[in-house]
Amino acid sequence: MEIKVLTISEDILGANEEKARRNQSRLDKHGILAVNVMSSPGAGKTSLILQTISRLKEKVRIAVIEGDVASTIDADKVSQQGVAVVQINTAGGCHLDANMTENALNNLPLDNIDLLLIENVGNLICPAGFALGEHKRVMLLSLPEGDDKAYKYPLMFTEADVVLINKIDLLPFLEFNAASFTKAVSGLNPKVKIFQVSCKTGQGLGDWFSWLQDEIKEMKSHHGS
Amino acid sequence: MEIKVLTISEDILGANEEKARRNQSRLDKHGILAVNVMSSPGAGKTSLILQTISRLKEKVRIAVIEGDVASTIDADKVSQQGVAVVQINTAGGCHLDANMTENALNNLPLDNIDLLLIENVGNLICPAGFALGEHKRVMLLSLPEGDDKAYKYPLMFTEADVVLINKIDLLPFLEFNAASFTKAVSGLNPKVKIFQVSCKTGQGLGDWFSWLQDEIKEMKSHHGS
Repeated sequence: MEIKVLTISEDILGANEEKARRNQSRLDKHGILAVNVMSSPGAGKTSLILQTISRLKEKVRIAVIEGDVASTIDADKVSQQGVAVVQINTAGGCHLDANMTENALNNLPLDNIDLLLIENVGNLICPAGFALGEHKRVMLLSLPEGDDKAYKYPLMFTEADVVLINKIDLLPFLEFNAASFTKAVSGLNPKVKIFQVSCKTGQGLGDWFSWLQDEIKEMKSHHGS
Repeated sequence: MEIKVLTISEDILGANEEKARRNQSRLDKHGILAVNVMSSPGAGKTSLILQTISRLKEKVRIAVIEGDVASTIDADKVSQQGVAVVQINTAGGCHLDANMTENALNNLPLDNIDLLLIENVGNLICPAGFALGEHKRVMLLSLPEGDDKAYKYPLMFTEADVVLINKIDLLPFLEFNAASFTKAVSGLNPKVKIFQVSCKTGQGLGDWFSWLQDEIKEMKSHHGS
């Protein structure tokens, strides 16, 4: 029975990859940069998205897909900022997938978006295994989670384009060795960019905004209008 | 294809429940209380286990099963305290299951254990769906994760016997409404016990130790020697 499951899982993963590629082509045609935002529960994904909207919304047309097991708490917060948002409730599912993302794309004004931020379900394991059609993957590790997480949850750190060390404002109150964490992540993923930030105070977010704007420019130069 | 997957998933869940019942009978015969400890990554599972060992090891014979996607970091810490420990690495799997637990039981001195603490993989979603054979489920929610988590990840809170609000020492530096969180959890699960603790400073852990000792006594009165 276990072999059967593996076979079908591979079919599912294969079908997901195929649909993710179609989602990405669709985003490319519209010149939309899609970023998959991943982390543990409560590490700061929504705060990062709200800060990004606040800083960039005059320059960049932003839309958001919110993924949660249940509730519309995060989508409500994003909606109050006046950007287009679609909530996906996975009803127990532990990650978004390409099919859910396609459904969300069908409900967004694709002709009027430059940047699509996709907040995945809070989970440091499963989301890393499922492509959505995104161009870039960013993950947050918050200081209170501890500096040993790259060893315990390696796939997420291996797959990320950017790792944000969030809640850096709590550093005086916690034991967190940023140098040791950075070394572990770089060992798994030598090309990754690592920024220390506080999505609460705004500290360090300048590097994140610069990186994002460069990526949007790059996308427009290849695909956009 | 999706229907096939559901069918097989149900088979897996059914087989898991069956094996979990067998694990529980085996634990009962030895008079061992088994507690499944669950939370997000970095919420304090290992710290809780280390505090529990430190306080109770003179009175109670403790063993530990450590579940992680990768690494033996936590098992090494537990082992230094001189208690029996088995590390399970799930190699990408997002939760422990009854089969993994059975393998671990085969490698523990069951005649010499009163309390088995099982540290599940750090994940607020998947572990709640898979019984291991445990008698009680305890979950930790750490303050930095935020007070809205019961709405976003309801199953874990519904299934718990005890919820520990951990890292209460960080309360002065965070926005966390303990009353609102407690109300949300009690709404989902009226029988749950909720304790505010700091596994770092030891604050509030007395209630947890008392609860645990009562449960061990209860187990012994029914099954133990």
